[in-house]
Amino acid sequence: MNQDYIIPNEWSIIEDGFHKDHVTASESIFSIGNGAMGQRANFEENYSGDTFQGSYIGGIYYPDKTRVGWWKNGYPEYFAKVLNAPNWIGINVNINGISLDLNTCKVYEFERELNMKEGVLTRSFIAELSNGNQLKIFATRFLSLDFNEAGAIKYSITPINFSGEIEFIPYIDAGIVNEDSNYDEYFWDILQIEEQKNEAYILSKTYKTEFHVCTGMKVGFALNDYEIILDKETEKTEKSIAFKYKTNVKQGDTLSIYKYGGYTQSMNHPKENLIFALEKVLQKVAIIGFDNLLQKQKEAWAKIWETADITIEGDVKAQQAIRFNIFQLNQTYLGEDSRLNIGPKGFTGEKYGGSTYWDTEAYCIPFYMSTKDKHVAKNLLLYRYNQLDKAIENAGKLGFNSGAALYPMVTMNGEECHNEWEITFEEIHRNGSMIYAIYNYVNYTGDYSYIPEFGMEVMIAVARFWQQRATFSKAKDKFVILGVTGPNEYENNINNNWYTNYLAKWCIDYALENLQVLKADYKADYQRIIEKTKFSKNNFDAMKNVADNMYFPFSEKEDVFLQQDGFLDKELIPVDQLEKSERPINQKWSWDRILRSPYIKQADVLQGIYFFENEFDTKTIKKHFDFYEPLTVHESSLSPCVHSIIASKIGMNNKAYEMYLRTSRLDLDDYNHEVHEGLHITSMAGTWLSIVQGFGGMRNFDNVLSFNPQIPKEWKSYSFKIDYRGSTLKVYKSHSECKFTNESELPVPVFVNGEEKIISKDELVIIS
Amino acid sequence: MNQDYIIPNEWSIIEDGFHKDHVTASESIFSIGNGAMGQRANFEENYSGDTFQGSYIGGIYYPDKTRVGWWKNGYPEYFAKVLNAPNWIGINVNINGISLDLNTCKVYEFERELNMKEGVLTRSFIAELSNGNQLKIFATRFLSLDFNEAGAIKYSITPINFSGEIEFIPYIDAGIVNEDSNYDEYFWDILQIEEQKNEAYILSKTYKTEFHVCTGMKVGFALNDYEIILDKETEKTEKSIAFKYKTNVKQGDTLSIYKYGGYTQSMNHPKENLIFALEKVLQKVAIIGFDNLLQKQKEAWAKIWETADITIEGDVKAQQAIRFNIFQLNQTYLGEDSRLNIGPKGFTGEKYGGSTYWDTEAYCIPFYMSTKDKHVAKNLLLYRYNQLDKAIENAGKLGFNSGAALYPMVTMNGEECHNEWEITFEEIHRNGSMIYAIYNYVNYTGDYSYIPEFGMEVMIAVARFWQQRATFSKAKDKFVILGVTGPNEYENNINNNWYTNYLAKWCIDYALENLQVLKADYKADYQRIIEKTKFSKNNFDAMKNVADNMYFPFSEKEDVFLQQDGFLDKELIPVDQLEKSERPINQKWSWDRILRSPYIKQADVLQGIYFFENEFDTKTIKKHFDFYEPLTVHESSLSPCVHSIIASKIGMNNKAYEMYLRTSRLDLDDYNHEVHEGLHITSMAGTWLSIVQGFGGMRNFDNVLSFNPQIPKEWKSYSFKIDYRGSTLKVYKSHSECKFTNESELPVPVFVNGEEKIISKDELVIIS
Repeated sequence: MNQDYIIPNEWSIIEDGFHKDHVTASESIFSIGNGAMGQRANFEENYSGDTFQGSYIGGIYYPDKTRVGWWKNGYPEYFAKVLNAPNWIGINVNINGISLDLNTCKVYEFERELNMKEGVLTRSFIAELSNGNQLKIFATRFLSLDFNEAGAIKYSITPINFSGEIEFIPYIDAGIVNEDSNYDEYFWDILQIEEQKNEAYILSKTYKTEFHVCTGMKVGFALNDYEIILDKETEKTEKSIAFKYKTNVKQGDTLSIYKYGGYTQSMNHPKENLIFALEKVLQKVAIIGFDNLLQKQKEAWAKIWETADITIEGDVKAQQAIRFNIFQLNQTYLGEDSRLNIGPKGFTGEKYGGSTYWDTEAYCIPFYMSTKDKHVAKNLLLYRYNQLDKAIENAGKLGFNSGAALYPMVTMNGEECHNEWEITFEEIHRNGSMIYAIYNYVNYTGDYSYIPEFGMEVMIAVARFWQQRATFSKAKDKFVILGVTGPNEYENNINNNWYTNYLAKWCIDYALENLQVLKADYKADYQRIIEKTKFSKNNFDAMKNVADNMYFPFSEKEDVFLQQDGFLDKELIPVDQLEKSERPINQKWSWDRILRSPYIKQADVLQGIYFFENEFDTKTIKKHFDFYEPLTVHESSLSPCVHSIIASKIGMNNKAYEMYLRTSRLDLDDYNHEVHEGLHITSMAGTWLSIVQGFGGMRNFDNVLSFNPQIPKEWKSYSFKIDYRGSTLKVYKSHSECKFTNESELPVPVFVNGEEKIISKDELVIIS
Repeated sequence: MNQDYIIPNEWSIIEDGFHKDHVTASESIFSIGNGAMGQRANFEENYSGDTFQGSYIGGIYYPDKTRVGWWKNGYPEYFAKVLNAPNWIGINVNINGISLDLNTCKVYEFERELNMKEGVLTRSFIAELSNGNQLKIFATRFLSLDFNEAGAIKYSITPINFSGEIEFIPYIDAGIVNEDSNYDEYFWDILQIEEQKNEAYILSKTYKTEFHVCTGMKVGFALNDYEIILDKETEKTEKSIAFKYKTNVKQGDTLSIYKYGGYTQSMNHPKENLIFALEKVLQKVAIIGFDNLLQKQKEAWAKIWETADITIEGDVKAQQAIRFNIFQLNQTYLGEDSRLNIGPKGFTGEKYGGSTYWDTEAYCIPFYMSTKDKHVAKNLLLYRYNQLDKAIENAGKLGFNSGAALYPMVTMNGEECHNEWEITFEEIHRNGSMIYAIYNYVNYTGDYSYIPEFGMEVMIAVARFWQQRATFSKAKDKFVILGVTGPNEYENNINNNWYTNYLAKWCIDYALENLQVLKADYKADYQRIIEKTKFSKNNFDAMKNVADNMYFPFSEKEDVFLQQDGFLDKELIPVDQLEKSERPINQKWSWDRILRSPYIKQADVLQGIYFFENEFDTKTIKKHFDFYEPLTVHESSLSPCVHSIIASKIGMNNKAYEMYLRTSRLDLDDYNHEVHEGLHITSMAGTWLSIVQGFGGMRNFDNVLSFNPQIPKEWKSYSFKIDYRGSTLKVYKSHSECKFTNESELPVPVFVNGEEKIISKDELVIIS
């Protein structure tokens, strides 16, 4: 497959020409979403070629029975699957009795555009049918940001060389399946199909989880943009309903169908009201009308871009890529619902299941903190706070007690869904990122109240986990952490992963430190928390003992922290000495060979240094970068951003740019030949980090906001904005100057290149 | 379930009284086999209660599509399943129109006996039907040792309180399934069903592997033991054929059906001859007749017991148990076919699949070497020799080259079938046991010719694997072996498992040493092998370098070899300090907790010390036993025997007996509540070892046979025989004396308690 068929454009993703072997990839890339729901860019009309149908509703999942080779004690019974939801976009088309199907007709002038500025997907082409009839099709589709239960389609056909009968068959279909169903089970139970004048509704519920969903459509027609009324025939099956509308259209005239559709669901409405609620929604959007709704959509997206946009001058592909990443993140999660989160594939595919990994805490929160109001990041934190009881249950299943919590590797409702012992049970560093996110949030927003109100309980539960998970080694006279998998998943069941040990100690220290703050300054909260968690002096002492006596693997000879015990027993041959044919090693090598190799899938020690950069001097950082970067294969999409940020920090600008390139166009250029499965949503936050924290050098340690802007030589300039404690700060960097603008009322104190500046309202500070 | 319902008896396994909840357990325990085929002790007549139907043919398997949770590179595509074969034993019975079914009628005086001396299974009971009819049933069944494609059943019914119609419906049924089919696939394709006078045949083949099997039956009848002829009706389905025979029987008369049945299969006959071949076999056994065939069966088993028997005086349960173990091993494998091997469940269940693990080389070969002629053990060695090319392929799939071989963890035809990375890819110590078995064989039999003829090629290929698998650690200035799982599967992906490293070095040393012998004394073989394997001076040097510089983890402080790097970081709390409710840990603990615990599933360092006992002094052995035994949970059936043998060696007689008890009645007393799945065939060889090498102290290092007999205080005496280099030596030990008798022509030199004795023909040597 041609991997760079996407046309460079500053604000749009454009595909030019129709290639059947791009269809499933484009379905991913051109996905649309509005935070509450999303869908792959499947064609409205029937397509008999290779396609991956997908429409998803935030929060709706199915607990698919786990599939394992060899059961291990502690495995969860089920794997939460993001569900393919009933299809409401379908519009089949017959022209003089011939089905319009891009797989069978001739296609000319095919263009598809995802306009990111306005949040709208369009598609136009000329089709020539087997009988020689040529017609021009133009389809526009979007999911409304204003009415997040609704989407709208305008689908227009113009006969070019004939006059004849056009039949539109809009339908809704709940007979859909998940491609990744483990046992080919059907996940939806159809409860009711209701038909009204040009409207239809299907009420369905998921088996087991009993989420109720109403899927609906409401259609209308226009000839040359003047509303017309067509007679309908209805065709029902057990799981679908379709309307048929036929009319004769003259050569050159344009017949359009408007289709409004969407979902109401039981997380947001009483289940007995779902049909009624959706009727109301579709009525409302239909009254507003397609054009006005589209205008509102443009305005809503303009508002998002107002803070979130990053501009890059001098490199259209880079500009397109960063906007694509920001756009997709916003399509996936908008931050108004603390029951939702950012799934690794968002609403673009089924893979990985679940709604959240540690990606959210480690990579996504900084993006949302900086580009939206602080309540958005807070909602993400609350997601975990609300699942604390489940995390305590998870830890209980693995033998931990007294309120210790282990957050799941992947989850929908707080229960662990992953089943691979070396990850599920051992990749426990994820537990630390929950606390790191709180620390990050408080540092950035200055909103300390989160800790007494919510955060402290999570911290205590996680600190309890680390205290119990550590083992006292008589041989080392230190606490060790045995049998873990670090961020680098190319090592399994290792002892004393430096990152994990560091994070464990830090989590305990941070919890105890904040307990002292609460004791002194938030007495009522302190009392409530102590009682609720039954936290004792013994708990405190036991935790402190573990933190104070934590072991860290270190090599005197190399003068670096070791990724884990025994790392230096490996043959440390740099990645660049591997034959190209051997890479990516996760496709070319057997798993045991990967494990005993020194190669690092994803930043591990460097991830820790990135998180706690303020605790290391630049020389130390550089030494570790020089040691680990040559061994890192970056076979996780979450790896290059961290290396890019650190490379910027230590002045390795070419390396920083090289790493940036690996993350920014991962999906657009389909580096890993897997974009057809969906997009890498969470790693898109890493791309944002590479610019803002990498090239921009933004940091927010110790309640201080600082910058150290640099620019890749390939670019003319770049700019980004951040929302910082209620102010909007714009940062512009070119080769000759660096400008800061404060677009809000409050003065913002920042350090730039180590020097303190107070940036006041509307002030432009130029640093050359 | 009552776990000790088996009546103690010196020569028989007896079940007294019918208990529905014993049915599946008894089906395993009373299994019968003749080395070529075997079957669970399913009832002949219909049984509507809980049952696990199983009939198996040696060598016939199906490559079931692998089921995994998360695919890892290198996993095999399929898992070879031992196949449930068509049923030939079925005889449904109707009495006055009522089906005889032990699940629905009243059952009195039920007794089942597996006569191990004669190799015959009998069952008798009185059934009372819903209409009050009482009848006496007596069923006898055996699988012929003389004609190993056939078995015979005599099934007799005597009306007790009525006269009436008895209907026999003998059938053969190829519509059977495997309970452990991963995707509920059907494994057999039915090709032909053929009927003759009182005979029927079904020709079927396995899908994919295309083994062709003919299953047949031939029936006859007798009234009060006088042959009678009955009219038949035939009932056919797509996958089965049944004959119906009805007659009226007077109260007190006995109607019997004789059913001869069995299999011919394409490993032994051209596939187009299978029906004809089975006709011949069944004709032959029918002419011989049931009683004569049974007489031959007794004689054949008497011949096996002549050498294989172990007697124990003063402990009936111990006597029963050791005979049960010896009996089952002989039912599973008789040593005449080098294409067969000893599956972990033999012909008694489906679990584990495949036909062989390293159990054969490590535990079973000594049993077969000592109780049968040396060609039997040689056939087991040849099994691996014949699969060398596949082992080289297996290694190739994992990235090894130049003729390095990795024998599979479990296999049918030499290809790896296991799919769990920490075992499949990492439990590579199995490769060493292949060479150890050769060494053991040569030491015991004195048949050095095996090495130039076959063994050397295997040794070179395995040594090549070890040389490539080792990594040079600059940090340790030694070769290390990273990322392995040792015999103790409660540790995964560890570095420098002492046992593995020791075996690796030994394999290389032994290979190079024998190469030198061949170079000097077997010049033609040497030349052939060097050419065939392209073995070079460089190969030699590289191997020697690895062996000479192998690293072994050792603790100065504890003065013991460490099971692996970092073992002393664990909290070494002895097993006996664990709460009883926590055990067995493999049922009570999550996998990660097991992994970071110090608990040992199965002898690991001690397994190595057992293999190479001659290289360690007694003090060293005792120190290691004292260190590791308290940490060993013996949750593998293969563990206690090694500990029992070592405990005997170092004079810990109570411990030796305690360990012996854990292995000897494992299945008869169903310690692990799993006997319904089948028997633990390979660990039965461990029980034999516990007596002969443990209490008897037999060793055969350096071409010397030695003994050091002791006796548990619970026994009066015990005796065993061994076949040693063509002589049969009997060893008898009581508390007062120890007697050696040579039952053959050749004098046998042995060391007893360290003193050399030459035991001549018929001589009785008494040592007090």
